[in-house]
Amino acid sequence: MPSPVSSVDPRTGALTEAVVMESTAADVNGAVESAVRAAAGLEALGSHGRAALLDTLAEALENQREALVDVADRETALGAARLNGELARTTYQLRFIADVLRDGRYTGAVIDHAQDTAMGPQPDLRRMLIPLGPVAVFAASNFPFAFSMPGGDVASALAAGCPVIVKAHPSHPATSEAVFSILSRAAAAADAPAGLLTRVHGMVAGQQLVAHPDVKAVAFTGSTRGGRALFDLATGRSEPIPFFGELGSLNPLAVTPAAAAERAAQIGEAWVESFTLGVGQFCTKPGLALVPAGADGDALRDAAVKKTRAVAPAWMLNQGIHDAYQSGVAHLVHVPGAIAHVAGDVRGTEGFAAGAALIEVSTADLAAHTAPLLDECFGPVGIIARYASEDDLLETLRRLDGSLTATVHLAQDETTLPRHLIRIAAERAGRIVVNGFPTGVAVNWAQHHGGPWPSSTNSQHTSVGALSVQRFLRPVAYQNVPDAFLPPELQDANPLELPRRVDGEY
Amino acid sequence: MPSPVSSVDPRTGALTEAVVMESTAADVNGAVESAVRAAAGLEALGSHGRAALLDTLAEALENQREALVDVADRETALGAARLNGELARTTYQLRFIADVLRDGRYTGAVIDHAQDTAMGPQPDLRRMLIPLGPVAVFAASNFPFAFSMPGGDVASALAAGCPVIVKAHPSHPATSEAVFSILSRAAAAADAPAGLLTRVHGMVAGQQLVAHPDVKAVAFTGSTRGGRALFDLATGRSEPIPFFGELGSLNPLAVTPAAAAERAAQIGEAWVESFTLGVGQFCTKPGLALVPAGADGDALRDAAVKKTRAVAPAWMLNQGIHDAYQSGVAHLVHVPGAIAHVAGDVRGTEGFAAGAALIEVSTADLAAHTAPLLDECFGPVGIIARYASEDDLLETLRRLDGSLTATVHLAQDETTLPRHLIRIAAERAGRIVVNGFPTGVAVNWAQHHGGPWPSSTNSQHTSVGALSVQRFLRPVAYQNVPDAFLPPELQDANPLELPRRVDGEY
Repeated sequence: MPSPVSSVDPRTGALTEAVVMESTAADVNGAVESAVRAAAGLEALGSHGRAALLDTLAEALENQREALVDVADRETALGAARLNGELARTTYQLRFIADVLRDGRYTGAVIDHAQDTAMGPQPDLRRMLIPLGPVAVFAASNFPFAFSMPGGDVASALAAGCPVIVKAHPSHPATSEAVFSILSRAAAAADAPAGLLTRVHGMVAGQQLVAHPDVKAVAFTGSTRGGRALFDLATGRSEPIPFFGELGSLNPLAVTPAAAAERAAQIGEAWVESFTLGVGQFCTKPGLALVPAGADGDALRDAAVKKTRAVAPAWMLNQGIHDAYQSGVAHLVHVPGAIAHVAGDVRGTEGFAAGAALIEVSTADLAAHTAPLLDECFGPVGIIARYASEDDLLETLRRLDGSLTATVHLAQDETTLPRHLIRIAAERAGRIVVNGFPTGVAVNWAQHHGGPWPSSTNSQHTSVGALSVQRFLRPVAYQNVPDAFLPPELQDANPLELPRRVDGEY
Repeated sequence: MPSPVSSVDPRTGALTEAVVMESTAADVNGAVESAVRAAAGLEALGSHGRAALLDTLAEALENQREALVDVADRETALGAARLNGELARTTYQLRFIADVLRDGRYTGAVIDHAQDTAMGPQPDLRRMLIPLGPVAVFAASNFPFAFSMPGGDVASALAAGCPVIVKAHPSHPATSEAVFSILSRAAAAADAPAGLLTRVHGMVAGQQLVAHPDVKAVAFTGSTRGGRALFDLATGRSEPIPFFGELGSLNPLAVTPAAAAERAAQIGEAWVESFTLGVGQFCTKPGLALVPAGADGDALRDAAVKKTRAVAPAWMLNQGIHDAYQSGVAHLVHVPGAIAHVAGDVRGTEGFAAGAALIEVSTADLAAHTAPLLDECFGPVGIIARYASEDDLLETLRRLDGSLTATVHLAQDETTLPRHLIRIAAERAGRIVVNGFPTGVAVNWAQHHGGPWPSSTNSQHTSVGALSVQRFLRPVAYQNVPDAFLPPELQDANPLELPRRVDGEY
């Protein structure tokens, strides 16, 4: 029996409206069938047609900016400033992915004409990437735009020519419906194939989606537990499918002794700003700072403690996240040896409000109590771990699980220690940040958003930037296929004027 | 208790020598530890150093050509001509992958300098691909060189900078040991890091390898059943790892009515040559021909039957493959409606000899008896399925499971039907061959060897050609990292003279 899906106001905790019903099995089948029907038409649009479509979607979202920010704020309490910024990022991303399509190199078009080799004669062979088929995208709680219905996974899957079925996040159903309605109308007005974007609501519907034989890949942003369960479902199918999951991430930040000596207070304060940004609900939140023992590290800690105390309580996204944060902080506080400088009081505000927290431990504590110290605690809590020596710092970093990011703070003239730190960081994370903070995720050609397990289900995963499109493509080679039957990307005349590797050369 | 691993002569079925003992758990741990120790040194060689290493390995194999062909022939009965050709292909492949390294584009180096954008200021970001870590490679029975110890998976993993632990195939342990000894000595003489290539023997050792926490990816060529079991092991780990498996493939071949009218006998004869090549033990064997009902199709079939009868029995690789082939043909013969024109007699030769077989059915039979008709039967058997109409042909092709290849035979002036066939073939296969046969797998920039499930565990899989290296790499982005701490691939001065995308342009 499907239940209604309702909006909840995080500022009060009250249900505000029933938005939609949870999707039934028939709804899921219908959504996937629409996607299957849209596939050929979406592929036939070609790179330039799909680029124009993404631009159209971006413009449609911007035309409804005020209404979208309003509904998203009611459901997430993230505030108009952040949500306006997030929507700008989202449309920027759609247009950037359109540029990736127009650039054309993403197709990986390669031609080897028939030739004699040391291995004997070789036939004419041409290869390019084609779409995988319908993709299920699981929206995130913490980015109602940028990692949800209109976000990077949807943009990159559509760019690849794959119809998308979004599993909407229960934290913002009204936002999802509003975005869906805007995108659908814009796509229809642009004569794009019907059914290229659909959505389902409800956890069971999400599982049915992953199990559906016509779904050919999954993109997911969420918790390690939920992601692992869906990953197991996707890989356990009779026909396994790729599961691109972004799960939990600790995002360690290492401060060298010289950096602490150079600018302790500055680093301490900026770190707190970063881990409390968006009420600590960023997947790139730097949750663990490795700071030297001794006076400079003390100064950094003292600045961080003072700054944390000054952070006003704010509303978290939903009841589950709020409660998990409260109990997570309670567990951290009770770790033997831990000093709870600030412990995340709610301070009397209503709804899902939470205050920031700061816990101090030693690196020995980290090793002794990996749970809960090295589990991601989603929310505005930072753990400061004091290391005894450079070797202790390196060894601690080396033992950590995989993260999306790793940050290193250095002083001006350091050489040896940074080299070691950056080397280890590259083994444990997908993005290395020097003398900055990882919370912001720029969208450009070089960006990478993914990392070793558990930050991603696969360390080759990338859900932001140009590489994100590649997840939804597979190679096909054409051997001795007459020009008339080849896709335009591989025809001799190169009608799309693509950059291609021909007989080994560009 | 480990058992000895022995060579068996397929020409007699007799054990000829105990080669080595099955690897113990301690052996497996030791092999992985060696690989872990070799990782940093192998990566530090850089693209050019690893290219030189691959060239050295190719030369070392060629210097021992006679001895290697001799031992491989004793263990596989594939004959000196085929094995000499396979070794030439293998060394060609090592040198081609060295060229891919020297070309440098495989690193995916991208630089975006700090800049202001519509999203606000963006930091300096640089991305490239780095090695995943130690890779387990499962050698294949049917290519003792090209898909085994010195084969494509090993070449591409070493190229990526990943040390390799080979799980040797029990069909050719002496060949594996001989190759291992040659490659190890050559690598040591070239001052390459010790432990970059090791090997284990035995099924249990293979499973331990896949489960080992320091193994970061698996490449596998073999049966669907064995591959699926190891895939489940790799994806079920507490830290799942990518499993690049090439499993079973039917490789359909469609003959249009016009092609059958134009050259029935020629196609029929060449098809038999292709499916009996190497005693039918190719993963690209075209096991199913879709041929029109009626006189032209009858002529094609008659030519194929005559040609099949003329194929001399030959030795298969091992007892298991031989027995599975005999029982597979027996199942095919008993499918209701099937006509067994030739039924794979052994005709009195000793050892693991087997004769070719040809079975005729209708497309309706295929639909009614998907097992065994649409299961890969490894060995020299072809199934000819007669279709009633163009729609029947298209529908039959559409219903097939994924394959490595799909082949279409057309007549000179056809237009509409080929377009539909090639379109459907691209959905069901990784390589489309027109008016040829898929058995040969050229090594070049455009080649692709992989396809939708079950032909590969992941349709993005490629185990031959330039793309094969990408399987063992993952992206890392560097944000505001000073030049001195960047890998040379990403330094401003571009010391390796790599082609790179800088601020969006090449």
